[in-house]
Amino acid sequence: MKLVPLFDRVVLKQLLAEETTKSGIVLPGQAKEKPSQGEVVAVGPGGVIDGKEVKMQVKEKDKVIYSKYSGTEVEIDGETYLVVKQNDILAVIK
Amino acid sequence: MKLVPLFDRVVLKQLLAEETTKSGIVLPGQAKEKPSQGEVVAVGPGGVIDGKEVKMQVKEKDKVIYSKYSGTEVEIDGETYLVVKQNDILAVIK
Amino acid sequence: MKLVPLFDRVVLKQLLAEETTKSGIVLPGQAKEKPSQGEVVAVGPGGVIDGKEVKMQVKEKDKVIYSKYSGTEVEIDGETYLVVKQNDILAVIK
Amino acid sequence: MKLVPLFDRVVLKQLLAEETTKSGIVLPGQAKEKPSQGEVVAVGPGGVIDGKEVKMQVKEKDKVIYSKYSGTEVEIDGETYLVVKQNDILAVIK
Amino acid sequence: MKLVPLFDRVVLKQLLAEETTKSGIVLPGQAKEKPSQGEVVAVGPGGVIDGKEVKMQVKEKDKVIYSKYSGTEVEIDGETYLVVKQNDILAVIK
Amino acid sequence: MKLVPLFDRVVLKQLLAEETTKSGIVLPGQAKEKPSQGEVVAVGPGGVIDGKEVKMQVKEKDKVIYSKYSGTEVEIDGETYLVVKQNDILAVIK
Amino acid sequence: MKLVPLFDRVVLKQLLAEETTKSGIVLPGQAKEKPSQGEVVAVGPGGVIDGKEVKMQVKEKDKVIYSKYSGTEVEIDGETYLVVKQNDILAVIK
Repeated sequence: MKLVPLFDRVVLKQLLAEETTKSGIVLPGQAKEKPSQGEVVAVGPGGVIDGKEVKMQVKEKDKVIYSKYSGTEVEIDGETYLVVKQNDILAVIK
Repeated sequence: MKLVPLFDRVVLKQLLAEETTKSGIVLPGQAKEKPSQGEVVAVGPGGVIDGKEVKMQVKEKDKVIYSKYSGTEVEIDGETYLVVKQNDILAVIK
Repeated sequence: MKLVPLFDRVVLKQLLAEETTKSGIVLPGQAKEKPSQGEVVAVGPGGVIDGKEVKMQVKEKDKVIYSKYSGTEVEIDGETYLVVKQNDILAVIK
Repeated sequence: MKLVPLFDRVVLKQLLAEETTKSGIVLPGQAKEKPSQGEVVAVGPGGVIDGKEVKMQVKEKDKVIYSKYSGTEVEIDGETYLVVKQNDILAVIK
Repeated sequence: MKLVPLFDRVVLKQLLAEETTKSGIVLPGQAKEKPSQGEVVAVGPGGVIDGKEVKMQVKEKDKVIYSKYSGTEVEIDGETYLVVKQNDILAVIK
Repeated sequence: MKLVPLFDRVVLKQLLAEETTKSGIVLPGQAKEKPSQGEVVAVGPGGVIDGKEVKMQVKEKDKVIYSKYSGTEVEIDGETYLVVKQNDILAVIK
Repeated sequence: MKLVPLFDRVVLKQLLAEETTKSGIVLPGQAKEKPSQGEVVAVGPGGVIDGKEVKMQVKEKDKVIYSKYSGTEVEIDGETYLVVKQNDILAVIK
């Protein structure tokens, strides 16, 4: 079972702060409660959206920072995902 | 009797959480009260909307995730449908 | 005496729920109080509206579902009509 | 003395409900208090407004229905007029 | 000393109601307190504003009706002027 | 040390009312407390902003009237400047 | 580990007021509490954003003034960064 986002939407798996500490990152305080890092699970096709050409700049497995409170949570196969618009993604972590 | 949506609107039949558990999905908690999954019943023609070309990306029988609280409920032939704009559909479930 | 709507406006005659039950439709509950079905009485010319080409997709006598609370009620010759923008019409009932 | 509206504005003389009953129209209730019918007194030139071509669809002497509360009242030569944008005019009464 | 407005702005000298009664106009009541008539003192060059071509339709010495509360008051050489956008001018009085 | 504004921004040095009285201007009352006159200190390059060509119409040393409360105050080298968008400048004083 | 911003976003390292006093600048009062100066750490690719070509005008190491309260704070490797849109940057300090 798979989510295929429409338009410029991106499906994210939220990352707990702990999951991203491999390289020594510490995400203290409120960041632990409300993670704003996620891994890209599925990417919409982009294309002409509201009459404007949108190219997708992220790809599956990218680790990204996204705007807190953006997007819609969906639960599928017992897992919670976040569907955001690509524009709610601030940066890719490399 | 049939609803023919205008523009980029889509008529959805709301799916109860139970109807989508064939593959083992569990949609616990508040999702059961307010399902945000639906099956596409009818699709508008798309075309030029607000001066912008809109192509329809969903088709009848697609199972979709849509934004909670979006759209307008209509009742016809004793059945409740939801008329949403295609842009309120987040993702297709495959 | 006749209302000729400007632009993309449409004049509707609100349908009471009972008037649409010929084919066995039952519109229970709050729908009876605030009908959101109407019959198209007059259709504006469309044309270039806000610099955007708008084509009229409904025609006189169409039975339509429209967004509740949209439009402006006007009373003429003792009858109440609703003037809506075409975009407030969700779907045609066929 | 004459008001020459700019752009797509239209100068209306508000019609009391009684003035429009020649053909037997009765405008009961709150319509009498706040008339939303008017006669077109002057029409702006239209033209390019906000970069969009606007054509004027009403002409002097047209009787029109306009959105309640739209426009700006001005008083000149002891008479009160309403200056509205053409888009606030819903329909012409013929 | 002179104000040269930018873009589509217009400098107005507010007219007291009394100054416009030459032809017998009476502007009673609240109009006296908050005049909404003015004389055009300076007109901006228009041109491309927000990517849209704006042509100036008023000229110096025009007497105009403008939206109450629009614009910005400035005081220069002991005189108070109102700087408005041309679009806040409703009509020219001829 | 110098501020180089981006896009269509303009750096202003606020003028106290007294500094502009050479030609006999008196700016009484509240204007003294919150000056809305400034001298242009630096001008952004303009160019394509939000997809729209913006030409700069002010230049260094221009004395300008700007919208009260617009812009952002910055302090640098012990001096307070105001960074405004050109569109917040109402008029040039000549 | 590195943040690669999407679109026209810019990653800033906030500068404490003290770090910018080399040339004798004093940033007194509230500026010390809420610095609005930053150093550019990473710059997005720009490109077509909402159908509009955006060119990046800042580069890494630029010292910039940005709108207070704009952007989103992210913490990575124990350091706090601010991700802003380029349009929230008012000026480059040279």
